[in-house]
Amino acid sequence: MDESVFATYPPELSPEQKQNLVALVKDWTIHHGLAVRPSPEFVSGSSDPNGVLATNAPVTLFPSLFPQSCYEAAVSVQTVYNELYAAITVDEAWLGEIIEELVDVDDFVANLWRVHKAVKQEGYVQPLSLGLFRSDYMLHAPEGSSEPSLKQVEFNTISSSFGGLSCLVSKMHSHLLSCPPGNPIAYPPHPCLKENRIPENTAVATLAAGLAAAHEAYGSSRSSPPLPLSIIFVVQEGERNLFDQLELSTRLTEFHKIPVFRVITTDILRLTSIPASNPSRPLIYTPPHAPSVQFEASTIYLRSFYAPNDYTDQRAWETRTHLERSAAIKCPTVLNQLSGCKKVQQVLAQPTRPDHLTRFLPRSDAQVIKALRDTFAPQYDISTPGQGRDLALNPSTAANHVLKPQREGGGNNVYRDAIPGFLRSMPERDWKGWILMELIQPPGAAKNVALRSDGEVLTGNVVGELGIFGTILWNNESGRIMHNERGGWLMRTKARDSDEGGVAAGFSSLDSILLI
Amino acid sequence: MDESVFATYPPELSPEQKQNLVALVKDWTIHHGLAVRPSPEFVSGSSDPNGVLATNAPVTLFPSLFPQSCYEAAVSVQTVYNELYAAITVDEAWLGEIIEELVDVDDFVANLWRVHKAVKQEGYVQPLSLGLFRSDYMLHAPEGSSEPSLKQVEFNTISSSFGGLSCLVSKMHSHLLSCPPGNPIAYPPHPCLKENRIPENTAVATLAAGLAAAHEAYGSSRSSPPLPLSIIFVVQEGERNLFDQLELSTRLTEFHKIPVFRVITTDILRLTSIPASNPSRPLIYTPPHAPSVQFEASTIYLRSFYAPNDYTDQRAWETRTHLERSAAIKCPTVLNQLSGCKKVQQVLAQPTRPDHLTRFLPRSDAQVIKALRDTFAPQYDISTPGQGRDLALNPSTAANHVLKPQREGGGNNVYRDAIPGFLRSMPERDWKGWILMELIQPPGAAKNVALRSDGEVLTGNVVGELGIFGTILWNNESGRIMHNERGGWLMRTKARDSDEGGVAAGFSSLDSILLI
Repeated sequence: MDESVFATYPPELSPEQKQNLVALVKDWTIHHGLAVRPSPEFVSGSSDPNGVLATNAPVTLFPSLFPQSCYEAAVSVQTVYNELYAAITVDEAWLGEIIEELVDVDDFVANLWRVHKAVKQEGYVQPLSLGLFRSDYMLHAPEGSSEPSLKQVEFNTISSSFGGLSCLVSKMHSHLLSCPPGNPIAYPPHPCLKENRIPENTAVATLAAGLAAAHEAYGSSRSSPPLPLSIIFVVQEGERNLFDQLELSTRLTEFHKIPVFRVITTDILRLTSIPASNPSRPLIYTPPHAPSVQFEASTIYLRSFYAPNDYTDQRAWETRTHLERSAAIKCPTVLNQLSGCKKVQQVLAQPTRPDHLTRFLPRSDAQVIKALRDTFAPQYDISTPGQGRDLALNPSTAANHVLKPQREGGGNNVYRDAIPGFLRSMPERDWKGWILMELIQPPGAAKNVALRSDGEVLTGNVVGELGIFGTILWNNESGRIMHNERGGWLMRTKARDSDEGGVAAGFSSLDSILLI
Repeated sequence: MDESVFATYPPELSPEQKQNLVALVKDWTIHHGLAVRPSPEFVSGSSDPNGVLATNAPVTLFPSLFPQSCYEAAVSVQTVYNELYAAITVDEAWLGEIIEELVDVDDFVANLWRVHKAVKQEGYVQPLSLGLFRSDYMLHAPEGSSEPSLKQVEFNTISSSFGGLSCLVSKMHSHLLSCPPGNPIAYPPHPCLKENRIPENTAVATLAAGLAAAHEAYGSSRSSPPLPLSIIFVVQEGERNLFDQLELSTRLTEFHKIPVFRVITTDILRLTSIPASNPSRPLIYTPPHAPSVQFEASTIYLRSFYAPNDYTDQRAWETRTHLERSAAIKCPTVLNQLSGCKKVQQVLAQPTRPDHLTRFLPRSDAQVIKALRDTFAPQYDISTPGQGRDLALNPSTAANHVLKPQREGGGNNVYRDAIPGFLRSMPERDWKGWILMELIQPPGAAKNVALRSDGEVLTGNVVGELGIFGTILWNNESGRIMHNERGGWLMRTKARDSDEGGVAAGFSSLDSILLI
């Protein structure tokens, strides 16, 4: 691929073109629910006391260019990734060994692990586990490379978001590419914009089908008399990204005809119960607006409880335990959530590793495993002396790396030259809270224009992150896989900051991809 | 029909039920584009300088009850009404006689008439005329009547709005009736809410099909070399109700594949032109964002220019003339707009009238004409001595009437006892600017709950107004009708004020109907 294409894209906008495009996007987004509730910095609570206002989600005006071969590579490994993380979750001994190492540097992991062990001691009543995953990648195009390749940034096993809004962004960019029909002029002329090369985005259908598969697999009610079944979305209070979630619940109710309730984390203990007399432990939901009608939860979909700040007090941990011990199929279980921690990704991606992949994927041939492995950027343990420490402490090799905290919210990334000094400033026993990763080097010339949620328009150099969605339903006791699908994607585009190789800081917009 | 059903509907909402229903509606509206831009009273321009915020359209939480027989009566006469107003427009002599009478009491009508006469003198180059009409009705249930009947409030021949949002409200209420699937509990139990008896609402498809029929009938480009054809929506600057309009333009572009441009009234003269050298007078639109590409307007759809305040200066009248003399098919022409004035409705509905209906509808049998006539509330001329003046000046008969200004924005309605004194306070020569109408008496017990655009929730007695949409394309020279369709409806519900028989004052919400 000739990287120079990034230098001439997107085409320059005249003031009239920009004004027209921004106006089209402002209206299209609200017309189609590509929306968010405004942040308190934009609209204060007192100026909208009833919380009715909405605004466009932050979006790019143009789809971003993306090499078709890299897109196809990402898609082709998704069901294998699904299977890998299911297998890791099934292998509690292997995963537990990694987690136990983290317990004294990561309170959050420690608390999650405690929830799992408590429920394990009582005995899980639900062997099925659902994963709605998203594997995130960046393009890696180091100087001198002929073709960019695909490198994984992270693998999300909980609350993988933006499937709903991402489909809408693809639809919006497709609309703009053909607007008006017959004589498209919304975009200025550009060779890349001549045909609509945005791949189909089936994220909503795929993610909803995963939830529906779990709902179906749950079988009949465990209550006596039997209760109607439903899926519960566990959500954060004041969620601003709810329209993303509504795309999924709407698909579930309208296409799959499955009842869905949204329940705020802090309402779970008040509105749900597990009858002490029922050893099957069905999770019963009593709608506050119709307390005479009860529903049994077949499936719990967590769009909360993924980060430390979702657990503000002990009651939050009780809530998570309550959900975990129920008969509902969890998306995800605590164990599956833990499988997505950065340390696991580092262990898999350590170049001097045992061959974990072959062990976890016995049914995959060597070529498939190689394709998956090729998406790893090298990552290193620095808890003990060895290659990782050597690379981190030597300024010349550190210059090509980023130091990431294992713990969510555990501090900022440390880049390049700053790594040796940073490590030396803390006791060696704390080094195991950090992971060394080779920097991903995205194409330098990529540019785009973004419309923020407050209507400001930003133009500049950007870094894109492509996420591929997948869903898998498996039996955590037998390891049997009952449903394994890929489908749909998310492009997020951020302003490129000075530390361009790591996760770029700053403002992020929803985007789509135009294959080249 | 037993009117007592209105007294028990809608069911009472507990605080939890209300909270849940309001939350569902707040989110559903934004998720589906049932939205408006907020008013400056709610969100000041300075707090949203880029104009990105949106909020829910004002909507009722419940569909309103409506007798099936009345709904069917309204639907059944719509294509006859379409034909009637096309025939009135064709009969320039008949219409002109009425209009000439108004010229000295109604500047707005006088100016419109001048536009028509100027273009007529030059010669119209486009014989085809498109009507997107909406006939508005109230239920009439005077004390002692066994069944409510249907009475027309007005017939709209220009900018008939809310077809787009009305379809969404029907969809929302239908969703709430079946939410969640299998065990609907969004509404409290009520006999009327057991099944979804909301009639299908095809307003968007019908109105867009009307515009598409005109676009098709325009034929090929009159330009040399030929230009691509498009439909132009002529809109107001700062239109808050644009999402209603976007439902139609989206249908036109996505289903009919017809280019649509939105042009603000004050931009028309800058962005469109009629080549002086081309006697066919095509209307050429030059998009400011792509000035090298020109489009010819097949059809002009006015969502502006319907009221005096759309004409702030002489340039606005020049703009209207410019559009009128072009080859584009107008929706509507000036003449067709004038056919919708209140005076025409009064002439048709005067009990001591010549039989205009039979003359205008020679192909309709007596039964059809009677059905249409039954929708008239008696209306009287008071410009000369006669029955109208007698009824207006006698307090005992005035008590059953409302006095309405013919002129848009020509003053407030005057009710009942106030009529004789009001008339006597002005010179008799000005009386012809007013029309006397028998009061429509809507069912007294109707109630509903409304969510305003600022999120306030109002509960109380209401008056509903049902509009039926229809479209007709005809040749204004030959009278030949090329397309005549009905389809879709609008329910608007207003708080009942003290003068309950006239057009109720105050806050109006979009609603739907549940047939009983």
